[in-house]
Amino acid sequence: MTKQSLHAISPTREENYPEWYLQVVKAAELADNAPVRGCMVIRPWGYAIWELMKNGLDKMIKDTGHVNACFPLLIPLSFLEKEAEHVEGFAKECAVVTHHRLESSGDGKGTLVPAGKLEEPYVIRPTSETIIGHSYAKWIQSWRDLPILINQWANVMRWEMRPRLFLRTSEFFWQEGHTAHETEKEAIEETLKMLDVYEEFTRDWLALPVVTGRKTPDERFPGAVETWCIEAMMQDGKALQAGTSHFLGQNFAKASDITFLDREGETQHAWTTSWGVTTRLIGGLIMTHSDDDGLVLPPRVAPEQIVILPIGRNEEDRQRVLEACQQLKSSLQEQQFMGEKLRVAIDARELRGGEKFWYHVKRGVPLRIEIGPRDLEQGLVCLGRRDRPSREKVTMSHAELMTSASVMLKEIQTGLLSRALAFRQQHTRKIDSVEEFREFFSSTAEGSSVQGGFALCHWNEAAIDHPLLKELKVSPRCIPVAGQLPEAEDGEGRCFLTGKPSLQRIVFAKSY
Amino acid sequence: MTKQSLHAISPTREENYPEWYLQVVKAAELADNAPVRGCMVIRPWGYAIWELMKNGLDKMIKDTGHVNACFPLLIPLSFLEKEAEHVEGFAKECAVVTHHRLESSGDGKGTLVPAGKLEEPYVIRPTSETIIGHSYAKWIQSWRDLPILINQWANVMRWEMRPRLFLRTSEFFWQEGHTAHETEKEAIEETLKMLDVYEEFTRDWLALPVVTGRKTPDERFPGAVETWCIEAMMQDGKALQAGTSHFLGQNFAKASDITFLDREGETQHAWTTSWGVTTRLIGGLIMTHSDDDGLVLPPRVAPEQIVILPIGRNEEDRQRVLEACQQLKSSLQEQQFMGEKLRVAIDARELRGGEKFWYHVKRGVPLRIEIGPRDLEQGLVCLGRRDRPSREKVTMSHAELMTSASVMLKEIQTGLLSRALAFRQQHTRKIDSVEEFREFFSSTAEGSSVQGGFALCHWNEAAIDHPLLKELKVSPRCIPVAGQLPEAEDGEGRCFLTGKPSLQRIVFAKSY
Repeated sequence: MTKQSLHAISPTREENYPEWYLQVVKAAELADNAPVRGCMVIRPWGYAIWELMKNGLDKMIKDTGHVNACFPLLIPLSFLEKEAEHVEGFAKECAVVTHHRLESSGDGKGTLVPAGKLEEPYVIRPTSETIIGHSYAKWIQSWRDLPILINQWANVMRWEMRPRLFLRTSEFFWQEGHTAHETEKEAIEETLKMLDVYEEFTRDWLALPVVTGRKTPDERFPGAVETWCIEAMMQDGKALQAGTSHFLGQNFAKASDITFLDREGETQHAWTTSWGVTTRLIGGLIMTHSDDDGLVLPPRVAPEQIVILPIGRNEEDRQRVLEACQQLKSSLQEQQFMGEKLRVAIDARELRGGEKFWYHVKRGVPLRIEIGPRDLEQGLVCLGRRDRPSREKVTMSHAELMTSASVMLKEIQTGLLSRALAFRQQHTRKIDSVEEFREFFSSTAEGSSVQGGFALCHWNEAAIDHPLLKELKVSPRCIPVAGQLPEAEDGEGRCFLTGKPSLQRIVFAKSY
Repeated sequence: MTKQSLHAISPTREENYPEWYLQVVKAAELADNAPVRGCMVIRPWGYAIWELMKNGLDKMIKDTGHVNACFPLLIPLSFLEKEAEHVEGFAKECAVVTHHRLESSGDGKGTLVPAGKLEEPYVIRPTSETIIGHSYAKWIQSWRDLPILINQWANVMRWEMRPRLFLRTSEFFWQEGHTAHETEKEAIEETLKMLDVYEEFTRDWLALPVVTGRKTPDERFPGAVETWCIEAMMQDGKALQAGTSHFLGQNFAKASDITFLDREGETQHAWTTSWGVTTRLIGGLIMTHSDDDGLVLPPRVAPEQIVILPIGRNEEDRQRVLEACQQLKSSLQEQQFMGEKLRVAIDARELRGGEKFWYHVKRGVPLRIEIGPRDLEQGLVCLGRRDRPSREKVTMSHAELMTSASVMLKEIQTGLLSRALAFRQQHTRKIDSVEEFREFFSSTAEGSSVQGGFALCHWNEAAIDHPLLKELKVSPRCIPVAGQLPEAEDGEGRCFLTGKPSLQRIVFAKSY
């Protein structure tokens, strides 16, 4: 037996992490590359995961007082030009609509050419601050109209030269919250409130431990006063920015002329925020939990939490087994996990047992139950957990299964979080010298694909363009919020690159 | 008192139906015109209605065996060219992306111009048959891979020269189902199954009575073999095409090369269908149920089914009343309507009573409950129903309210459907002569804005281009499915325009 055949995914993480990632996506049928530069097709299994994520987060966004709405896909060029930093940040990646119809080229082959040139081109939204600002300027007259707390679920487009499924795609899907407030204080509170929502959502739904923090100036959203973010560590030690929340000050209110009469009757510019998470989270999910047998899903976002695989050699067996499976499914569906009925499927396709088994392993289904004719006679089922080695199975009675199914799901949900957290802690280190920093990000431990991790270093803004960072392809990920990384909190110090004063340690990492 | 002040919406339906529609949309804060040609901003109240519709229909689509997925927004021009009729049908309304970045024009004013010209332009999807076909061609190898039953919720764009909010907008929102089958029979069954789903959804959720039928050849989807549709009658007698389901034969399978090995090992082209409903349904909802006081919502799609309005003149009163309102709200939320907990809101804003009252009337909230200090002492509430005259109120005890709230919601839901059905029947007539046809579509009854309605006429395809239809702006809406309009079923006859043989009466109407 060759080494490769021990795993359902080839190459393994250790052999080639980036290629392993693509093979996991493919094997789980999550997404395909589209015949459109940098875009993806999200396949049903991938989309079902996204729907569960959307529903979970949407409820949290609504529970914190926000409502959904929907703004146009296209943005007039002149809108984008209004905020100088903003347009600078996005101009290089905008898809531009210049015509509004097609006509025959006259080549006799039915070839079409763009026609009906637009007076003013549009860009497909890369983000919606400017187009939403236009509405807010109309809707807001007085302080009584504030705050406005709106979110939208939308597709956006940023032309991507080095696309990777979920992580970087030209078209991607997200929610973008846009709020307007009477005071600076209230807008900052909103920015931080949504950062907390993201932290809670990624932790409790996706089992992703994240560090919340502030971005250094070079990593801010174009046009923001402050950008906060959540940063997760992937299994190769790289950081993934998993969500951002921006305090925009009055910059966009000034650009879009969002003014209001305050309580004293004076005209003021509103204070705005924006915040978003994207389909990139699916990439983060994959790279945090999956293993060399494929996708591993936290039960809360598993479209099927339990799959039942009937096994039978002849028609009569199959029929009896299938009936038992259906009964089992009905009973399991009455059980609850996290306040919702269990999601249970039966796979009754006529495939070879091994093929079917591995199909669900690769798709990350948390619990697999096999039932054959002999199990049936003995009232037993054969159970496999996706958080344990794939070939490990335990036998239990139907009654045991009923009482333990949602307990096991809970164990898997919390177990994945603990494992990811332990991994992060293991690859996080305080670093105070250039030598150690270089060593940390250059060497790979024996039998591991991990290069580096989170380096916690004292730092000063003067070091932003330091050549060592470019050389190692490492960047400041965030200035952690107090209490997030206790191990980083040791007071003031000196920047390890410049020797200048530093208020606190910040997180450095390679990143996606 | 002037006549206008009797109604919350001006003009009334009778005075100016198209303008009344726009004023209802505005007064209910459903949508705004966007600063992008023909596009709209769907405001929170309008979007909440759409979310309820989406959730309801999505469940029905899933319950019939379909799964959701997501395909790219952009379509390469060459894909569109593959199906001749299809491209012919959409070329005149395509938004075309020709560049992938912006650069400074060099005018020193920060003006931007498109740059990075694409080798092959893309269009923003007007519909997704061709781009989805590309994936299906890859995914389908054998008959074992069939059927494929996929739906997507998406935004699409068809450049619109005469836009109207919800009814015709350049960007609109819809679900588009795309399925591929082994046999012609199965594909036709799928097409009709989804037509039934649409009929059921519009009837049971939106209280819209629709006629299901087949389109005449001139009204078919470009590239379809047969188009089925659901047609609703608005309060001005015009028809609204509220959804379509297309049997595409093998046309698109041939264009996209979707082939499979059949059970005999022969290569065959798959049989495909597509079907969709759009945000246009919100327009249909408004024009079917609303009145001269504004929007009227069927409770199933009302974001708030009950609004409680506390009334109090001084601070002490207000506090006591508000507490009672909160208790009432909690109790009502324990009640159920159509299997879901009641959606109840309290509007505690400090507005004048009349202003607040009309605000909720215009937004179409089914039940309004007012509570003042005196009601509180007597244990009473003052209740208004949106399906009754706005000033009509009844007084009842809290206990009565608890037992009758969901009963009343049910009455409103079914009452709206009955009323719409009666209206349609009243404005549907069998017509056998050109004179009567002309009279039906030219005159307006006294005190009514209704011109025409549904004319049930014998008809032959040879009459498609008849000048009378163009003159009266009337078109064949559909060939009703058997049993849909019993009043139309009187066997064979002669086309009222050409005298040629006719198999059955079909529906003619002016349309949106």
